Amino acid sequence: MIESLSLPEFPAGHVWLCGAGPGDAGLLTLHALNALQQADVVVHDALIGADILALARDGAEMVYVGKRGGQSATQAAISQRLVTLAQSGKRVLRLKGGDPFMFGRGAEEAQVLATHSIPFRVIPGISAGIGGLAAAGIAVTHRDVNTAVTFVTGHDDTTDWGAVSKASEVIVIYMGLKRIEVIAEALLAAGRGTDMPVAIVTDASLLTQQVLETTLGTVGQDLVTTPMSPPAIICIGRNVPLRDVLNRSQHG
Amino acid sequence: MIESLSLPEFPAGHVWLCGAGPGDAGLLTLHALNALQQADVVVHDALIGADILALARDGAEMVYVGKRGGQSATQAAISQRLVTLAQSGKRVLRLKGGDPFMFGRGAEEAQVLATHSIPFRVIPGISAGIGGLAAAGIAVTHRDVNTAVTFVTGHDDTTDWGAVSKASEVIVIYMGLKRIEVIAEALLAAGRGTDMPVAIVTDASLLTQQVLETTLGTVGQDLVTTPMSPPAIICIGRNVPLRDVLNRSQHG
Repeated sequence: MIESLSLPEFPAGHVWLCGAGPGDAGLLTLHALNALQQADVVVHDALIGADILALARDGAEMVYVGKRGGQSATQAAISQRLVTLAQSGKRVLRLKGGDPFMFGRGAEEAQVLATHSIPFRVIPGISAGIGGLAAAGIAVTHRDVNTAVTFVTGHDDTTDWGAVSKASEVIVIYMGLKRIEVIAEALLAAGRGTDMPVAIVTDASLLTQQVLETTLGTVGQDLVTTPMSPPAIICIGRNVPLRDVLNRSQHG
Repeated sequence: MIESLSLPEFPAGHVWLCGAGPGDAGLLTLHALNALQQADVVVHDALIGADILALARDGAEMVYVGKRGGQSATQAAISQRLVTLAQSGKRVLRLKGGDPFMFGRGAEEAQVLATHSIPFRVIPGISAGIGGLAAAGIAVTHRDVNTAVTFVTGHDDTTDWGAVSKASEVIVIYMGLKRIEVIAEALLAAGRGTDMPVAIVTDASLLTQQVLETTLGTVGQDLVTTPMSPPAIICIGRNVPLRDVLNRSQHG
């Protein structure tokens, strides 16, 4: 059946920038699997699980360029590595957590490849802010709740949280765990209530997934009682309590 | 290799609400393929292509509930249909374009299923606003351009476009083609320049994909010269011109 799709051949000397989704290997795309089964070398982040890497073809070289832990690599070094590998004639799969273009630095890597005339292809992945939250029973939109959702990084000081608060009922924050109290204060100052629901999800879509359901008023103290470690996805909005119903899917 | 993943068995009487992605069958997830290969009945929208439906197992019943064209079904009727099919003991795959929770009404259908005690599971898909734009060479985020992106429906009158404009440099509009001139005026009034880049993408990720690159000041007249038909994804922001480089992936 899948053979009927005639997925593309991975040409030597090309780089495919590919999202692996939030964690669950079942959320890989067929294009991602097709890429894994042809790549000569897989350049991957810390967030890519062993079960996903095990889908690579026998003999593929695995290159870890995670930015956490001991062997951290700079973005420039990663991009240069992709160029060098492609110039040596390899089929280079750059596998990233989530989606390459959704806070994934895929655009930067693509620009470097283009500068060096390396042919490349971008393969989207399921972003944790949508599919990871779904695994926690959270729908980023519901017709009764919101017609807009803003995805924002938590580590940026220039964000106009007042505008974000007014722009969309639902706010999804990437890389925001360490600054959640500052962000909560900004949203309270912008008029959100202390009882505004907040969910913090770690290891989204994996068996180790953890979810903390709290509010803007209590998130600080709740994180003292229930410490969580990055990376986390944070969702703020009246869509969060719907997970009482939507989360039944986890037991389906 | 894929066998090593032990993807879940589809129990009789269950409903799986599944996103099929923006169009390209290669952007289906492994979970979606696994669902297609076990479902007794596939309840699908107009946006699901024949090559995707062809992945269903032999003998699966196909039920079209698209909201366009002659045989339109109300949302309540679709939800009720899912309940009835599940109660008759079928494995029911509800296959939707994009992602079920991203303006996909998946949350509403899940609520109806929960009300009727029908076990269900949600399978995320690649949303057109991320993966469809990527196919047009558009990255929804780039570190030099934005740390926030707002996804918003174009048909809602209550949107505070001034706040949206301040909240995030990049704005992605679903279902907005018919109202794009009104939206452009609102964004201009909010302080965006007439030269602010706009891209309109139809049939994203398919061979029939069309992209119109324009600006807030000229989008109205450009759509007269180059008419486009819904559904379309619209992206507004300084990330759009980067497609000159990122779009090389299409030729990779």
